[in-house]
Amino acid sequence: MSQAWRGFASDNYAGIHPEVLAAIATANDGHDVAYGEDRQTGQLRELVCEHFGDGAEIFPVFNGTGANVVALQSMCRSWESVICTDTAHINVDEGGAPEKVAGIKLWLAPTQDGLLTPEALDAQIYRMGDVHRAQPAALSLTQSSELGTAYSVEQLAVLVERAHGHGLRVHVDGARLANAAASLGVPLRAITTDLGVDAVSFGGTKNGAMGAEAIVVTDPELVSVVPFVRKSDMQLASKMRFISAQLVALLTDDLWLRNATHANAMAKRLEHGVRQIDGVDVLRRVDANAVFAVLPPDVTERLQQRFRFYTWDDATGEVRWMCSWDTAPEDVDAFVAAIAEEMSA
Amino acid sequence: MSQAWRGFASDNYAGIHPEVLAAIATANDGHDVAYGEDRQTGQLRELVCEHFGDGAEIFPVFNGTGANVVALQSMCRSWESVICTDTAHINVDEGGAPEKVAGIKLWLAPTQDGLLTPEALDAQIYRMGDVHRAQPAALSLTQSSELGTAYSVEQLAVLVERAHGHGLRVHVDGARLANAAASLGVPLRAITTDLGVDAVSFGGTKNGAMGAEAIVVTDPELVSVVPFVRKSDMQLASKMRFISAQLVALLTDDLWLRNATHANAMAKRLEHGVRQIDGVDVLRRVDANAVFAVLPPDVTERLQQRFRFYTWDDATGEVRWMCSWDTAPEDVDAFVAAIAEEMSA
Amino acid sequence: MSQAWRGFASDNYAGIHPEVLAAIATANDGHDVAYGEDRQTGQLRELVCEHFGDGAEIFPVFNGTGANVVALQSMCRSWESVICTDTAHINVDEGGAPEKVAGIKLWLAPTQDGLLTPEALDAQIYRMGDVHRAQPAALSLTQSSELGTAYSVEQLAVLVERAHGHGLRVHVDGARLANAAASLGVPLRAITTDLGVDAVSFGGTKNGAMGAEAIVVTDPELVSVVPFVRKSDMQLASKMRFISAQLVALLTDDLWLRNATHANAMAKRLEHGVRQIDGVDVLRRVDANAVFAVLPPDVTERLQQRFRFYTWDDATGEVRWMCSWDTAPEDVDAFVAAIAEEMSA
Amino acid sequence: MSQAWRGFASDNYAGIHPEVLAAIATANDGHDVAYGEDRQTGQLRELVCEHFGDGAEIFPVFNGTGANVVALQSMCRSWESVICTDTAHINVDEGGAPEKVAGIKLWLAPTQDGLLTPEALDAQIYRMGDVHRAQPAALSLTQSSELGTAYSVEQLAVLVERAHGHGLRVHVDGARLANAAASLGVPLRAITTDLGVDAVSFGGTKNGAMGAEAIVVTDPELVSVVPFVRKSDMQLASKMRFISAQLVALLTDDLWLRNATHANAMAKRLEHGVRQIDGVDVLRRVDANAVFAVLPPDVTERLQQRFRFYTWDDATGEVRWMCSWDTAPEDVDAFVAAIAEEMSA
Repeated sequence: MSQAWRGFASDNYAGIHPEVLAAIATANDGHDVAYGEDRQTGQLRELVCEHFGDGAEIFPVFNGTGANVVALQSMCRSWESVICTDTAHINVDEGGAPEKVAGIKLWLAPTQDGLLTPEALDAQIYRMGDVHRAQPAALSLTQSSELGTAYSVEQLAVLVERAHGHGLRVHVDGARLANAAASLGVPLRAITTDLGVDAVSFGGTKNGAMGAEAIVVTDPELVSVVPFVRKSDMQLASKMRFISAQLVALLTDDLWLRNATHANAMAKRLEHGVRQIDGVDVLRRVDANAVFAVLPPDVTERLQQRFRFYTWDDATGEVRWMCSWDTAPEDVDAFVAAIAEEMSA
Repeated sequence: MSQAWRGFASDNYAGIHPEVLAAIATANDGHDVAYGEDRQTGQLRELVCEHFGDGAEIFPVFNGTGANVVALQSMCRSWESVICTDTAHINVDEGGAPEKVAGIKLWLAPTQDGLLTPEALDAQIYRMGDVHRAQPAALSLTQSSELGTAYSVEQLAVLVERAHGHGLRVHVDGARLANAAASLGVPLRAITTDLGVDAVSFGGTKNGAMGAEAIVVTDPELVSVVPFVRKSDMQLASKMRFISAQLVALLTDDLWLRNATHANAMAKRLEHGVRQIDGVDVLRRVDANAVFAVLPPDVTERLQQRFRFYTWDDATGEVRWMCSWDTAPEDVDAFVAAIAEEMSA
Repeated sequence: MSQAWRGFASDNYAGIHPEVLAAIATANDGHDVAYGEDRQTGQLRELVCEHFGDGAEIFPVFNGTGANVVALQSMCRSWESVICTDTAHINVDEGGAPEKVAGIKLWLAPTQDGLLTPEALDAQIYRMGDVHRAQPAALSLTQSSELGTAYSVEQLAVLVERAHGHGLRVHVDGARLANAAASLGVPLRAITTDLGVDAVSFGGTKNGAMGAEAIVVTDPELVSVVPFVRKSDMQLASKMRFISAQLVALLTDDLWLRNATHANAMAKRLEHGVRQIDGVDVLRRVDANAVFAVLPPDVTERLQQRFRFYTWDDATGEVRWMCSWDTAPEDVDAFVAAIAEEMSA
Repeated sequence: MSQAWRGFASDNYAGIHPEVLAAIATANDGHDVAYGEDRQTGQLRELVCEHFGDGAEIFPVFNGTGANVVALQSMCRSWESVICTDTAHINVDEGGAPEKVAGIKLWLAPTQDGLLTPEALDAQIYRMGDVHRAQPAALSLTQSSELGTAYSVEQLAVLVERAHGHGLRVHVDGARLANAAASLGVPLRAITTDLGVDAVSFGGTKNGAMGAEAIVVTDPELVSVVPFVRKSDMQLASKMRFISAQLVALLTDDLWLRNATHANAMAKRLEHGVRQIDGVDVLRRVDANAVFAVLPPDVTERLQQRFRFYTWDDATGEVRWMCSWDTAPEDVDAFVAAIAEEMSA
């Protein structure tokens, strides 16, 4: 493969958006105070209110696992636990970090499409107050989900209200929050703080940053707790200005929205393309920047020799294709052509 | 203060060296595989052997606390503990991360100058095999130390040999390893892997990187363990190429050495300058890029209104001044002049 | 209720068998060394070889949760995880202790009857070697299960062999191991060490002890590790002789077997009795000392005003009745009569 | 040694006081509810108010390490830490359980006599609010101390007030609280709850129980938290009535006081005896049931072939002798005679 190929394996394979890289370079101006008292972090703290409402505070961290675990540990006491779907990233892809770093037990709600239903949430509300059961203290939702689907604003509102009614706080794993908001055509706050979400993992890395995630909270108690958890969970950057600068870039001139909208559109184009190909099934809704398709195993095998991408489910033959902020229409078209080619081979 | 001032508070206040920033930009070339299978990390894996010897493996992480905890947890089973000095960063400055993330108890050896003596190490070797005592499994040394001093090669050799004789593995917290090697005039391996050090936290951030640290190990068992600990300790970067690129830049054309040599020289210049000022005591050896001086409290107070720096010990009036890769001789001279001015005010 | 009622809520509601109490009193003879160097623990170490084979070592602990977590943590490194059924005690009834004390993530295999199938085990063996998935290191089986069923020797043999083939160690949660062995008519070793089970939580408390459980291991590595994990997990008794004395009593003159056989027989009597009652369904096999029955909710409610017992599943109306070493036939008959009475009320 | 020797190695070597054993037997009356809803625990909850004041709640646990860690974890959030003396049991004798189970970093105040001074406490109050330092949330005091000394009521009052003034909660490790209260001639509450101590580890095991410790708290927040921490820390007994019965026995008819007074008196007798022997130094105050003496190494060696006891400090030759509730005057006299004999050998 050439030095500068673009594929469909992961939105983590994409690089840094030029505006983000420029922001890093601009922030590299002499000395500044470490650990968050710098100019870029100050600017970010102002911007976050524009996007998440007054009183919102933002705490940059290194990666998505860090954002999730810091947010959840900030909401749980030592004996408490978190409810999430069985497909959640915190369950299947973080090397056990929630359990290992924070001692957080996860109660898993089954899901077909990556989205939690109110009924599945309610089914986890039992033996409350019973010391023998690790007590649920928080609900963690993924928006957009690991399966490329997104909750509607109404669905989220119901879940948040119901969780609060059960005495739970609500966390949103928003590694791809931008994609969800872009897809729904709403501001970031409409699917988080406006609904009463207590803590958001706001992702930048998959959306054009080099490596920048953040925890957004509004509750004064959480505002006071997160800094300590962030430090003891090893997610406090010394030269934080360079993380904050990336987030500032994304939140400026709607870069977050431009990037996400583009990636979503590329996924739609890909979906549209493969739906034309006989024998390829797209079984899931394409709400964000992921397309899941079922291919014959031999086709997958041949295709993977030409393009790197992941098989999602060996049993069903379902594969995952991710689009990025820099996926070009011609990338999609070439990929669709290759799929068609291999299908008819 | 202007946008681009340079002070003496911390080597973390400095920005990114131009060669490092250029390396990030160069790495931003299309897509590449996430989590370490990229070109820059491949290059880094080759470079590490040049600097730390054949068989050395390098695992980039986000920050120094992460490097230290991943390294130590990789060497300790659940009931084991680590011996270090009472001034060690892992003891006083990491928010309790070793205990909180990894459950590691620290056995503290007292030190006057930040350097552990063989006798202080031996004094921690007791009740070995006794379940009632958290069993020491590793020794963690800081090179250069938190107090600006550095172990000689011979001192390290004795400590490593003695630790191994006690059945301990040896970790070097090398957040400022480059400064120590530059000061001693030896390659990085001469104070680490060549002596049999089992795991090194190799720091880039304080030496011109934007944010890049790494764990270097040679023992095949540790090579197989570190990747899992790194992930579950939330220190695995998705777009790792941009961390690796920074380390590649530092290890190329001796940038690590140029930066460290310069910072050390500026500290020496500062030491020399303040030693000329009546009433200012420099009580510690200046082996690296830190100068510790004792000032009258009112002088410190006035000076801190002009320059940001930290008081190390309120009781003694000792303050800490750090030099960076970008500290200019004129910065030092202006600072010395200001100190002299306040001393005679 | 009278001072000395006997019910069907839990085998934990029963008291101490007279032979066990006598053993405690006998052990109370002057001073003896603490923490396990005493005469009773010495005797226990000999007895364990009779029951679990040469080379078996036994480590008394306080309770079942402690036995399980110490055993599992002894088999897992910090990033590793454990496979078990979703009904396992370690998952649903230990307040999250495996996650909270030991950082152990549990991978849950669904089960209908409390017994794991080889296929359900295999289904958890994926992404081995992938740092993003907490790596399975052990399989934990419950014998007899939380649902009153027991694995046959053959079923266990298959599971152990398969787990070993996957590179997993095998733990048996034997809080009711005696009931399973009694039910199968085999010695304790036939369903544990003889099959290559790596660690056993051997339960005494539910089988006539006051409070005595133990970890049995044969692998020399585990023999050396368990003492340290037991201490740091706070499960090391100072006056251990009184815990060991209880286990000695149970392992002497087959008291473990007499008690378990009796409890199992009482469960069979209860099953037989309620099966005669129209409208009461016993849906599960009664392999040990538990009977699960489905009752109309109003009957359950009235019955619970007369006898204390637990509803297992509110949705289905299934309730759980446990028999103990001291359950009398007349207790069973009176209870059956009461059920019949309430059913026809 | 005979079956029923009594020595001076540890108060853990003594057996069960007859009144405690009788209480266990009495509690063994039919079935009772598990996990603390039993009659004995009910009785204990009443008794605790008599001894610790209205509003005091008691939570039985298995051992002293468990009591300490549950108490401390109940008072600390994930990033917080505990101040204690360097000689504290939680630091030197619990296998690292505070760090390993609860992630609690200990900040160590040096002490000569096992007692913390207000100045040593104050010296740990720095960088409060600084995320880089694990934030002190509690002070843990040991009464009587590991060195056989006891705080006076006034000393404790000053420490508690000062700790509260610093925003810390106060825990008393009272594994030998009875010995301290007996020595001071005050009720248990006078050195704990009356002074505002927030959590007490109340020890029974060393004072005549078989194995029974408890956490006593009055603050409603802690009352609600401790049960959950106790369960997830694996310190919840199923057949709790037999633990509670032991504590009930100790708190009935002042058995706790009778036992402790006796043990203390035996220590005084031993101190008096050895002070008559030329060449034996008793350097520490004998406030409770421990005598620390300095012997020539060869004498210690010969004496340890006749009696089991521990060397406290190899460097100084200091040894520790513990008296128990069942130490007889003739045991002391015989031991003193043996010491004299070996000294003149």
